[in-house]
Amino acid sequence: MTTRLTQQFAFLQEIDKLKGILRATAIADGSRPENSGEHSWHIAMYAMVLADQAGSEVDITRVIKMLLIHDIVEIDAGDAPIHSQFDTADQDAKEQRAADRIFILLPEDQSKEFRALWDEFEAAMTPDAIFGKAIDRVQPLLLNLANDGSSWKEYDVTLAQIDSRIGEKVNKGAPWIWAYIREKIKPWFATRGLD
Amino acid sequence: MTTRLTQQFAFLQEIDKLKGILRATAIADGSRPENSGEHSWHIAMYAMVLADQAGSEVDITRVIKMLLIHDIVEIDAGDAPIHSQFDTADQDAKEQRAADRIFILLPEDQSKEFRALWDEFEAAMTPDAIFGKAIDRVQPLLLNLANDGSSWKEYDVTLAQIDSRIGEKVNKGAPWIWAYIREKIKPWFATRGLD
Repeated sequence: MTTRLTQQFAFLQEIDKLKGILRATAIADGSRPENSGEHSWHIAMYAMVLADQAGSEVDITRVIKMLLIHDIVEIDAGDAPIHSQFDTADQDAKEQRAADRIFILLPEDQSKEFRALWDEFEAAMTPDAIFGKAIDRVQPLLLNLANDGSSWKEYDVTLAQIDSRIGEKVNKGAPWIWAYIREKIKPWFATRGLD
Repeated sequence: MTTRLTQQFAFLQEIDKLKGILRATAIADGSRPENSGEHSWHIAMYAMVLADQAGSEVDITRVIKMLLIHDIVEIDAGDAPIHSQFDTADQDAKEQRAADRIFILLPEDQSKEFRALWDEFEAAMTPDAIFGKAIDRVQPLLLNLANDGSSWKEYDVTLAQIDSRIGEKVNKGAPWIWAYIREKIKPWFATRGLD
């Protein structure tokens, strides 16, 4: 039991580093970039609150767990902003190596369980992963709406780019949410001639 | 459905403010205070990882949900550091008013569900709440251990104070964890003559 606790606390100490990984989007008040630790909390709250927007085939408890761990690999790989230019194969390889290094800190049964959840989320093929990925892409839109487009301005984003990079996946997992959010963000782009 | 989404997103935007509430303990690398948003993520991870340390009567999914929402009232009430001097009745009243204001942003059914979960956590009478409270008190000990006692030094804390303010409650909800952690933190206090 002591060995098990030692492994569990080693993992819990290691993941504290996620609080130091910065994302492209600022928090709602625009004062500073969001970090991936607080983002992971916010997105787990999204799952808890938007549970009734998911299809009946979605197990929201599994979605919450996936979202709590989905960004842990960024401790080594960093956050790759969705609107930036980056080498997806290189980023995927970095994230795989990070998953290999970090999840193995846990006791073997949990290491396998957490890795399987993370792999499922990344593959985005099951209803739980598809819904989780959808709401993970919605949250930065809401933050941008609140802080006058912090990352939209930084990356010169158009509504057409939002539609292709984000809308398609949100629509797949949460069509009502996408219809609702697109109406909300449209005016910001329209007034700038970016729709 | 649109009204419901409007209420859900109003709540999800409001709680972003939790990322701006600072706690007494620094993050593990000691570089800055932890905020209550990232703390809520870390403590939900504690529940997920330490699930097998809980008794069989504990429903870990409910514990994770409680921990995700447990600090939301701090948006209005602020964080009251456990080792500081504060008026507990006044802090409790502030937190009750905050719960009244914030949870009501949600659709009525969710507002009642979230408030009931928060009330249960605060009352600390059920197995789920007792375990959740226990691990919520363990996490700052681990951060202090990593960053050479950031809040222990600030508040001149002794091991005897840790035992009475923290140990009793951790021992109630997670006795193996308390026995393990106390051994880990004891040397820090012993070398300073504070045991």
